Amino acid sequence: MTLTGSERRYEGRVIHLDVDTVRFPDGSTGQLEMIRHPGASAVVPMLDDPAGPDPRVLLIRQFRHAADGVIWEVPAGRLDPGETPEACARRELAEETGMRAGRLERLTTIYTTPGFTDERIHLFLAGGLEEGDHRREADEFMELRPTPWSEAMRLIERGEIVDGKTLVSLLYVQAFRRAR
Amino acid sequence: MTLTGSERRYEGRVIHLDVDTVRFPDGSTGQLEMIRHPGASAVVPMLDDPAGPDPRVLLIRQFRHAADGVIWEVPAGRLDPGETPEACARRELAEETGMRAGRLERLTTIYTTPGFTDERIHLFLAGGLEEGDHRREADEFMELRPTPWSEAMRLIERGEIVDGKTLVSLLYVQAFRRAR
Repeated sequence: MTLTGSERRYEGRVIHLDVDTVRFPDGSTGQLEMIRHPGASAVVPMLDDPAGPDPRVLLIRQFRHAADGVIWEVPAGRLDPGETPEACARRELAEETGMRAGRLERLTTIYTTPGFTDERIHLFLAGGLEEGDHRREADEFMELRPTPWSEAMRLIERGEIVDGKTLVSLLYVQAFRRAR
Repeated sequence: MTLTGSERRYEGRVIHLDVDTVRFPDGSTGQLEMIRHPGASAVVPMLDDPAGPDPRVLLIRQFRHAADGVIWEVPAGRLDPGETPEACARRELAEETGMRAGRLERLTTIYTTPGFTDERIHLFLAGGLEEGDHRREADEFMELRPTPWSEAMRLIERGEIVDGKTLVSLLYVQAFRRAR
């Protein structure tokens, strides 16, 4: 598939919308709506050793307009211009939880929904957490919830955790970092 | 958070872009860019018993413009107007793989990226697969790959599977349906 044209239809604060014209392998052309996004990082903040018996993970309860309610998430946010995914992960962790990570390990990177956006989220596992210099301010939109791992898994199994990046990052840790 | 206004800035084939005005709990107001999407279903098509030793899953290799390349996915697609998530899952499975599911079990539902879209994907586990009446046509954009479960897990661990819905659905099965 070859890009033969792109027209910006909306330029926003966070996202832009382009209509791209592409040539398919069979020679035909088509138009695709594409949301451009700067990308983001997300962090699984472990309060205990992930390989231990029932470690706590620091989750967030956050209001999301898209979901019309409060949902469970891991700390996350958009990359600033020129910022590395790791620096973004550390900054978002500090801003949203007040914690500094002694260790930060990259897990994987996801396309959130590649049918219509180029948004990628880089997922990290954070350990060795300490209170940072960054004092977290009272926030009516975001509540911190230290959560036993077994409880997080139950919330996932029952469909009570619905955020894509949160599901991938917790289930990735469950599959590849819990039992070693 | 209360919605006080919404202005459609782009109406597309697949997605629409609204700028919503909302009132926050502290009384302030703000504007949020929101992509409206009809929702979708995705299916994990198991060729063998998921609880068996190394069952095969029917994955797809598909070109995605957003990822500028070919990526691994599970069969999936958008809900038609009035269509139930289960009917959509069965239809997309037939259209993309030619298979009919003897059993279909709901796993969970995800918000793909709730920071800027209301898109939800309903995830299903399919078993008892049989060749359906629907003859799958030759498709230059999509290749079927029966994949041993252990190989799918290796691809995830190494970061070679990057699609959000595919990661959640495979890792959900790994966590809650593989060992019983």
